[in-house]
Formats: sequence, C-alpha cells, structure tokens
Amino acid sequence: MTVERRHDPDARGFASDNYAGVHPEVLEAIALANGGHQISYGADVYTERLQKVIHGHFGPAARTFPVFNGTGANVVALQAMLGRWEAVVCADTAHIHVDECGAPEKVAGIKLLTVPTRDGKLSPELIDHQAWGFDDEHRATPKVVSIAQSTEVGTCYTPDEIRAICDHAHGLGMLVHLDGARLANAAATLGVSLREMTTEAGVDVLSYGGTKNGLLFGELVTVLNEAAVHGIPHIRKSAMQLGSKMRFLSVQFEALLGGDLWLRSAAHANAMAQRLYEAVRELPSLEIPRPVQANQVFAILPADATERLQKRFRFYTWNERVGEVRWMTSFDTTEADVDAFAVAIKEELTAG
Amino acid sequence: MTVERRHDPDARGFASDNYAGVHPEVLEAIALANGGHQISYGADVYTERLQKVIHGHFGPAARTFPVFNGTGANVVALQAMLGRWEAVVCADTAHIHVDECGAPEKVAGIKLLTVPTRDGKLSPELIDHQAWGFDDEHRATPKVVSIAQSTEVGTCYTPDEIRAICDHAHGLGMLVHLDGARLANAAATLGVSLREMTTEAGVDVLSYGGTKNGLLFGELVTVLNEAAVHGIPHIRKSAMQLGSKMRFLSVQFEALLGGDLWLRSAAHANAMAQRLYEAVRELPSLEIPRPVQANQVFAILPADATERLQKRFRFYTWNERVGEVRWMTSFDTTEADVDAFAVAIKEELTAG
Amino acid sequence: MTVERRHDPDARGFASDNYAGVHPEVLEAIALANGGHQISYGADVYTERLQKVIHGHFGPAARTFPVFNGTGANVVALQAMLGRWEAVVCADTAHIHVDECGAPEKVAGIKLLTVPTRDGKLSPELIDHQAWGFDDEHRATPKVVSIAQSTEVGTCYTPDEIRAICDHAHGLGMLVHLDGARLANAAATLGVSLREMTTEAGVDVLSYGGTKNGLLFGELVTVLNEAAVHGIPHIRKSAMQLGSKMRFLSVQFEALLGGDLWLRSAAHANAMAQRLYEAVRELPSLEIPRPVQANQVFAILPADATERLQKRFRFYTWNERVGEVRWMTSFDTTEADVDAFAVAIKEELTAG
Amino acid sequence: MTVERRHDPDARGFASDNYAGVHPEVLEAIALANGGHQISYGADVYTERLQKVIHGHFGPAARTFPVFNGTGANVVALQAMLGRWEAVVCADTAHIHVDECGAPEKVAGIKLLTVPTRDGKLSPELIDHQAWGFDDEHRATPKVVSIAQSTEVGTCYTPDEIRAICDHAHGLGMLVHLDGARLANAAATLGVSLREMTTEAGVDVLSYGGTKNGLLFGELVTVLNEAAVHGIPHIRKSAMQLGSKMRFLSVQFEALLGGDLWLRSAAHANAMAQRLYEAVRELPSLEIPRPVQANQVFAILPADATERLQKRFRFYTWNERVGEVRWMTSFDTTEADVDAFAVAIKEELTAG
Repeated sequence: MTVERRHDPDARGFASDNYAGVHPEVLEAIALANGGHQISYGADVYTERLQKVIHGHFGPAARTFPVFNGTGANVVALQAMLGRWEAVVCADTAHIHVDECGAPEKVAGIKLLTVPTRDGKLSPELIDHQAWGFDDEHRATPKVVSIAQSTEVGTCYTPDEIRAICDHAHGLGMLVHLDGARLANAAATLGVSLREMTTEAGVDVLSYGGTKNGLLFGELVTVLNEAAVHGIPHIRKSAMQLGSKMRFLSVQFEALLGGDLWLRSAAHANAMAQRLYEAVRELPSLEIPRPVQANQVFAILPADATERLQKRFRFYTWNERVGEVRWMTSFDTTEADVDAFAVAIKEELTAG
Repeated sequence: MTVERRHDPDARGFASDNYAGVHPEVLEAIALANGGHQISYGADVYTERLQKVIHGHFGPAARTFPVFNGTGANVVALQAMLGRWEAVVCADTAHIHVDECGAPEKVAGIKLLTVPTRDGKLSPELIDHQAWGFDDEHRATPKVVSIAQSTEVGTCYTPDEIRAICDHAHGLGMLVHLDGARLANAAATLGVSLREMTTEAGVDVLSYGGTKNGLLFGELVTVLNEAAVHGIPHIRKSAMQLGSKMRFLSVQFEALLGGDLWLRSAAHANAMAQRLYEAVRELPSLEIPRPVQANQVFAILPADATERLQKRFRFYTWNERVGEVRWMTSFDTTEADVDAFAVAIKEELTAG
Repeated sequence: MTVERRHDPDARGFASDNYAGVHPEVLEAIALANGGHQISYGADVYTERLQKVIHGHFGPAARTFPVFNGTGANVVALQAMLGRWEAVVCADTAHIHVDECGAPEKVAGIKLLTVPTRDGKLSPELIDHQAWGFDDEHRATPKVVSIAQSTEVGTCYTPDEIRAICDHAHGLGMLVHLDGARLANAAATLGVSLREMTTEAGVDVLSYGGTKNGLLFGELVTVLNEAAVHGIPHIRKSAMQLGSKMRFLSVQFEALLGGDLWLRSAAHANAMAQRLYEAVRELPSLEIPRPVQANQVFAILPADATERLQKRFRFYTWNERVGEVRWMTSFDTTEADVDAFAVAIKEELTAG
Repeated sequence: MTVERRHDPDARGFASDNYAGVHPEVLEAIALANGGHQISYGADVYTERLQKVIHGHFGPAARTFPVFNGTGANVVALQAMLGRWEAVVCADTAHIHVDECGAPEKVAGIKLLTVPTRDGKLSPELIDHQAWGFDDEHRATPKVVSIAQSTEVGTCYTPDEIRAICDHAHGLGMLVHLDGARLANAAATLGVSLREMTTEAGVDVLSYGGTKNGLLFGELVTVLNEAAVHGIPHIRKSAMQLGSKMRFLSVQFEALLGGDLWLRSAAHANAMAQRLYEAVRELPSLEIPRPVQANQVFAILPADATERLQKRFRFYTWNERVGEVRWMTSFDTTEADVDAFAVAIKEELTAG
C-alpha cells in the first residue's frame, strides 16, 4: 500500500455535508459487493435488488436509475421530462439555477424560468408567475415545475404543500420534478415517509440524494409516473452519468435505504442542527432568518465575528451583502462538535 | 447491516474489464481516506497529493482533474480544447464516436469527423482525409485529433507513431487528445513509461482510465499542454463530472499510480490475454484477426460455437456479420480461468 | 404571374412594427442588385460596400455580419463573446430571455442571469446583482452584460447611461452586448448619432435591427471591439444565419443606412407614437406607465375597453394582470391612422 | 435612393445556383404583397394561401413551415423528428454532414451516422450499415434516414428507389427525411410530380429549396406524416428560423409553386447542364465521373486546365485530390453562356 493517511479523521467542521466521509456501513456494503464479476452498466444483482428497495419506499410503480451526482440526477430527470422546446419553472434559489454552472442550459438546452421566493419554496401562486404562454411559440413552453425538498435554504414543504403544487401543475398540463438532494432530512424533520412526500403527493420524477446522506457518491433518478418521461437509459448514458461498475452505486443505496440508515443519519444531522440552533438562537447580534428544518442553520451576524470564527471553524458565507452564513451538520457531527462551535460563536460575537 | 452478498465472488468471465470489481488495495485506500471532514470538490489533501503523483508520471507541467467516467473524461477534455465551431478527427471505431450515445454531440455540440482504419489506429495520412478546410465557414474546423491508446480493437501505437501523429497535427495547427481508457495496458505491452507515450510524444491532453485498471470508478483528465485548454474547472462542473467527495476519487488514483499497482494490474491482464491467445491461436475454425497487444483477444469463429460457448462463459459478440467476438481479461483473471475457458473453446469448436 | 394581392394595402394597425411591409426604397435597392451573378455567402460587391457604410456610422474598426433575424443576431453575437461556461447578465424583460423561445439556451447553451428592473433598463447597481462569483466553478461565469436600446418597454438609455454600464462591465472584466433591434428609434429620440450610443460609449458588439426599421428582413451583427469576439464567420454559419444570396441582405442595409432612410423612418414612427401619446395622455381611465421614448405607447386601461378596441384595431395586450396594452407605430403609420385610433380609444373608454 | 448598381447584371458564371439573383416574377410577387399591415410570424393571408398551394403538390395532409435557409430547414425538420438521444443515418456526402458547419450537432446535439456511397445515394443495404443497435443505450438510436433529392453530387433517386428506402426505414421503426434543396431539378429530370417522389413514396418530412430555384431566400419544412414530428412551431422559433414579415417568404413560394415557375426554372437549368455536358463529354483529357441528372456537371480535368479556366469563368473545385470540378447552371443561364464556356473548356484543355 503506497497510500498514507494525510488528514485528521477526527476533525470536522460546519461547512457542508459534502465534507463528511462515507458511513462505515456503506463502505462495508461496497466490500461485500466486491469480488468476482458482475454485469456492468446496471444489469447486476445489486441494481436488481435496489429496484425492490425502491418499491418499498416509493411504491411498486417506481423505477430508479443510479447516477453519479446531484447535478447529473437533475439534468437527466429534466431532459427525460422535457421536449426540446420546453422549460422549467423553479425558485430563483434552486440548485439547478444557482449551483450547477449552467449544466441544464449547457448540457440539455433547458430554459429555466425562475421565481423569487421568500423561503426557497414555490407555491401555486408563485408558479403562476411563470406558468403561462403555453401556446406561444415565442416562449419556451413551461412544462416542468421543479422543487427541492428540503430546499437550498433549509426549509421543508409539508406533504400538503407538495400536493397542492402537483395538483396545480397537473391542472396546467405540467409535470413535477423534485430535487431530493436532502430528501431524507425533510422526512426526518416532518416525520413522514418518503412516499407521503412524493408518490402520494403526486410528484412525477424525483432525485434522491445519497452523497449528502452518507454515501461515497451516488444519486437516484426515480420515476414515479412512467408517462412523464422518455428515453432515460439513453439520456443517462449521453449525459455521461452511466456508471460501469454500477453494482457499487446500487449496493450503497441498498445499505442506505434497505434499512433505516438513511433516516438515522438524516435525523442525527437534523438534531445536531437543532442543537446548534438552540444554543445560539437567543444570542444578541445574531439573527436566524428562516426556520431551521433540516441540517442547516442560517445566521446573520457581524462580519468581523464571522471572519474570526472562520479562522477557527470551516463554514461558508451564504450572502455577503447581508452577512448571512450557513452552518451545516452531517451524519458524523457530534454533540461535542456542536457544543464547541456554539461556544466559539458566543466568544466571537462578544469579542468584537 | 442490511446488505447481503448476492453474487459469487469467485465467478469471473471474459466479457469486460468493467465486470471486475475493485482491487483490494484501492478499497483499503478509500477506507484510509475516510473519516473526518475534507474540503469538497477537490480542495482536499488527497487531490493535492495526486497532482504530485501525476507529475511523477507525466512531468511537472501536468495538471489533472478527476472525473467520474470515461465518457465524461473525453467530453470534458474535448470541450476544453475546442472552440464552439471546431471539430474532432477520430477513427470510426473511436469510443467517442461509437460508444458514448452521442455525448460529444449532445453535451457539447462537437462534430466528429471520422476516418475508417484497418486496425483502429490513425496515422498522418489517415488524418489528412479529414484535416482540411481550416478556413471554410461551411465546415466545422478540424482542431483536435483524438486517438485511443490502446485502441478499442486492442491495438497499440508505438511512441514513435504517436509522435508522428502529434507532429503532423501540430504542423496543421491542430491539437492531440489521447483517450487513455486502457493506457496502462499499452504501457505494459510496449514496455514504455506513461510519459514516453504521452508527454514526450507531444500529446496535449489525455484521459487516464482508472475504472478498467481496477478502481471502483474514476478517470483523470490530464492536461500536458496548458495552452491547449481553457476553462476546465467550469467545464468539468457544467458537464456534471465534478465529484463532491473528491478525496475518494483522488486517493484511488494515488493507490493505483503512487506505486506500481497500475502496471502490475495491467501487465497481469495482458498476460492473461496472451495466455488465452496462445491457447487458441492454432485452433482450426478460429481466426485471430488482429494482433493481441492489450487485454483483449478478438476472434472469429462459427456462430454456433459462439452460441454454445456464451451459455458457459460471458463474453460479447463484437461484429455479428463476420462472427467476431471479444474476449477480455482483467486484473483479477486467473490462469485457471483462462485455461478453463480455452478448454471450453476447443470443446465447442469441435462439438458443432 | 400566378400571385394576386390578397390584402388591403391601406389597412394598418398598432400591433407591431413587424406588421408593416417593406419601405419602397428598400425594394428598389433589391431590384437594383438583382440580375447577373454575384458570389454567394457574402463575398459580393454589395456586402463589401456595406462595410464602408458601417464604418461611417460606427467607426473604421467596425466589422458587420448580416444575418436573417433579431434572435439570430443576438445568439450569434453572444456565442462569439462567450466561452462555453460563461453567462449573460440581462434585464428580466430582455428579448433574449422572454421572446426567443429559449434560443440562447437551446442553440448555444447560454445561461442568462436576469435582473428585475423598473423600466427595462440595467444600471451598474442592477448589474451587480448578478455580476459576481467570477472564480466559482459552481456558477456560470458572468461575462457579458446585454442591454437593449431602445428597450422592450420603449425606454431609452442616454449615451452616458450606456457609458456607465460599459465602464462598469469592463471594470469587472466583462463585455457589453447591445441588442439594437430598435436602435434607430433611440437615435431619433435622443438626437444622437449611432456612434455616440455605441462605439463612443464603449459597447463591444451590437446588433442593428433592419426589419423593424423598414427592411424586408435582416439584422446586422456589428463588432466594435475585435478582441471581444472569436469565430463569427463559423458561428454565423453553424447558427444557420448565413444567407446565400447575401447581396440582397446587404443592399437593403445600404439603402437604409447609406443615406438617412433609417433616421427618417424611425423619426416618423416615433413622431406617430408621440402624436398618439399626446392625444390620449390626459384621458380619464387611462394610464401611461412609462415615458414614451420610441415607437411604442404602453397604456393601462379597463379590460372591457381593451376588448372593444381590439375589435376595431389590431394591437397586443402586454400584461393581462394589470390591463396593460402596447400600441406600436411604424414607418408607414400616418397621422390619419393615429387620429382615427385616438378617437376610437376615447369612444371605447367612455362607452363602458 | 442612395444605392447604385455595382455589378454587371449580364455577367454569369458556373459556380453555383446561389450566385444567381431573383427571378423577376418572384420580385413582382414580393411587391404585390407589400403595403399595409399583415400579421407577422405567419398568421398572414399569403402564408394561409401557401398551405393550399402545398396541398396541391403534396396532398391535403401536408403542412408547411417557411424558414430562411436550407441548413435551417434541415435542422428544424430533424429536431422535430428526433428524441434527444436519437440519430440520423445519411450519406457521407450529405449537406447536413459536410456543408453546415456542424449545425445539426451544435444547434440540436444530433448525431450523424454516415455511410460512404458510390454516387451520393443511400439504399436499404447501405442504410443497414448504420441502422442497428436500436436498444443499446451506448449508441445514439438511429431514428431518421436522411436523403437528398437531387443529391449533392447531382444524382437523382427514382420514385421507386425512394419508396424502397422509406419502406425499409419504416420497417425498422425509422422515419425518412428528404433534403429537397434541389427537389425541383429532380422532378424536371425524372418527369415526375413532386408528390410521386415524396408523399406517394412514403417520405415523412421534406424540405423544399426555394433559394436555388430562383427565390430571394426561403425554404419550406413540409410535413407529410404528422405522426413523425412534434413541436415544429416552437422548434422553428428556437432554431432562429421564424421570419417576422413572413408574408414575403410565403408569397415567393406562391409565385414559385402556384404555377409552373418552379418547373420551368428547374427544367431550364437542367437543360443548360445537359447542353454543357453534350458539348464537353467527348473531349479528350476530360472525364464525367457520374451521370448528369440535375443542374450540375462534375468533370475531372488536368489541374493546369482548371487553373486557366478559372481565370476566365467562376466555378469551384470539388475534389482537389482527383482534379474534379463542379459546373453548375441556374434558371438564368443562357445557351450563349454555355456555348462560350464550352469553347473555353476546349481551348484550355488543348492549350496545356
């Protein structure tokens, strides 16, 4: 072995759930699936098994397609839902709009019609700001409403809110895509099943985020309404999201979703965010601008305090103009991590 | 742990090096890099270390970008080398043309100008069939020559042949991209270093294939001539090939390329292909249409023998018209595997 | 001749300057350029002459490329200014965002970063809402600011306002594109030359709209800063905007811009809009929400009055929610047309 | 009028039918349609009338969409016929492959699967070289066969040959696109109606070329099988091929196709090509490599003779390697033009 450990396996911060590593049960599952030969590109026994696991969560009509990453999952799903001339209505904070370097536009020529929101969440009323002109050849036809659960700003839709969006969209002849990069966190917060928020609410296609939920890598494009899509196998390949040794993608999801690891990990991350929130919510000079519903705490604090704090703990500034930062927890965040961070926050807020 | 093993870890076939699993040293490296937090998207210590490993192989000017898969590596590299109106000259057997579901065209609008070849290899003369019309606005301007080492049909370029192609391309104002999905196999066969076939031969940008060389997943877009590319970080992201927990991509390559694992694995796979070739080359009713230079044996045999044989061992038909099949070995193929397969081939050839 | 006239050549409305026909002097010019052979695709004597005409208006460094239509002009220009991963900052009312059926995204993978405005006009402050994250690989890099003169809502930038935008953009390392579909109307209103609003204000690339200015068809992509673009001839062809019998595109522009036809036509259309504005501005139950600066009058009036009025005269509803309509004049609108329309407006406003 | 004539209206060459101007009857029709207002973007009376004219030629189920140019017509049609992951089988001499600067790939991500041919014509057998792998996600799915009538090398399919191709394609679940840039010339040569070669032969979608047939500009995307397409109005707009003052596109086609102008013009151009062919066919040192079936004569002659001849008459070298040139006639070529050119050819062939 030529590789040596170059990092401290006990050092953690609050920058991103992508900074965390792999849950040990997931690594174990990979090792278990190793050895021997398996058909590549998804015709293996672990991918076959994954379909059953997905049926358990999303119903027997669900069909799932493992892909590499969240941007890939979103762009594969949207391509499969859209004609060449059709467009997506989404929040102006949506990951597909803000964080994918234009992949929907560049890879698939997809027009995004964005709507400003108060809390990252769309509603039938907000959708109507862009859902019009269905017969106008001068306008890319709105066809898909894309929402994120939980949202990029840490808020969650209730199942009823999702159902209202789906009903509205379907009433307009549109479809609903759900970006579930942190779907597990929403389920944990809301205390509802994955199915209640998706299949039963009327979602047509969703992505399920494995990476932020403790996998080495991997997301699932999951089709709930077969009539909503076309050509996914080819689209996944031409979008460069078809893994060859797919057994290792699939078995990770089996480890995650076959039991309750997905929920345990998400609930823990959420609890750590709540712990942090509780510890700092009443601090003077600090404002929590939105409800803390998943594994993120957004806070507005003085720039100098942020600056000092970032020398001690890793985290990102979210909005420089207003001094907003994002503190994120993950499956491996400990209570001690949170407590030490809360102390530091207090210290730096008063040190100024 | 909810996952159980569902496959026989001792069953192997001759279908593809993608059917093989992960080399144990690679899994060990992943485990070593696990735990704690590391900056995501490539600013981690393992990706930093990988750059040094790459310098050792390709020279101090090399810069490497881990991506998910081979199609992704090729399309990221080509986008970075091409203006919007420029085209690629490649063999008509090239993976980018035949096996990527049109990803170059669909993701990046890239025009491929293909050339028929005898053995999957381009030459200055063959390149000239498409390398013309540089100032003609009616023709996508030929800008990149793309070659594969080893080729899709199991042949290898000598370093001199690559140098001749690079000199010719550069003389025309063009650049050279090398698809190195099986570059290790070529190095093992030719007995030359990676650098001799690439940097020293004049290649501008290459991909290095990890997956077929024993990784769980991963390829490297490696830039040898900085002037040949632009915008790779953004292009990688917008092409949906930027992994978040990149430390696990990078540390796999460190395990592979930091010592001699890459060469050991490739040399073993090649040796197994040679062993198979030697065992069957003189069989009547069987023809080996091209030299066996990497880890593939192509053979032409009667359709009925193929059919019977495929019931016993997995492998692919390459060209149904002429009855050509492909037998592929991998890092985990054993001598016993080969010998049993060779016996089966003999049996089925004579059973008809 | 098998064709017969099927329309009333004396019937005109207020729907669009695209409803008007061709100025007689333009048809004459086409006839003059007819007969004999001329090299196709732009190597003809009329296209050569057009370059000189353009020099007169935009300075000796200008280079112009005739294309078919305004969407084509914008998408050719933007492609030539943008790397594959770069984005455009524009008003959320911009034609490229609202009226081109997603052509920038679909044809060229261009990401549009939109900004809400009060009056269709950007400013340095508004640009800053999207002009950030230049080194962030997760965000399409803002590279071009695109403004329209006059804007889609009939407002005009002063040369100073354009200069401030250009200075700001250039200071950020960005470029400025000007959509001049109605540039002539702005020049007429402001009483400034084309050059003062473009070359001298720092614009890098502009389109000049011929169709709305009285041509049969045709727009000009005009490059003022050669360093801002690459590959236009090939980009024009691959964007399907290269006309074969280009002499007829070019000679129309010569008829328009070689003398003062462009200005006469635009000034007349503007004067007709002013005449209409003056006739209706003080009517009760009617509001003019923005200054009338070009050949459009926007008005807010009761829905029932609009409905009755549209049975008598053709015009478009601009914003159904607020009851806003657009009345547009053209080079062929007569004083009698305006006066009759103003009478009708008064009648229908009081008829309710 | 500021424009003056800058060219000799009596000078003609043999370079291209795009070098010719506009047929006088077409200019007359444009003038007739001028004046007054007409709804833009195709809801005018002339476009309505054109639909009826098209019904006369192609049957009552035909639906036609005027566009600007031939590349636009092809790329609009192909987009409307293809899912995102589907491909086109065409001859390697096809205009879409060779002469459109990669527009199919760049604008629409279309993969072209090319086949070498002897004479520019596909056949069921040749199609089969690329029409396979319909279920293979690694391969862009062949969906459309695209043929040109007449071909780029001046040959024509018989109606039976087209029918055989259509039957074969439909049997494979594929569709047939016909690039009719010079369809009129084929009809004139074969002595068949437009319908016999298209609707009755099973063609699904065709383009009809107006420009080379004597228009100022314009092509028609004509749908014969409504089930073969989707979204054409939006695709035409997003492909930047929707003309605003469309009455002038449509009335040109009415002038062309409403009577026999299309056939007169094409038959004349063909006759001039035959006259040239007859005059030179038996010259020593000159070879006519393919039958002369439309308005092109291809000839192979010594390079020095070509060089001298090109100083006297304009024409293009087609294939420099073999010394092949293309001589093209048009609706305005005169017998005197041909005779003078034939004399010059003889002189230069013997002058060497």
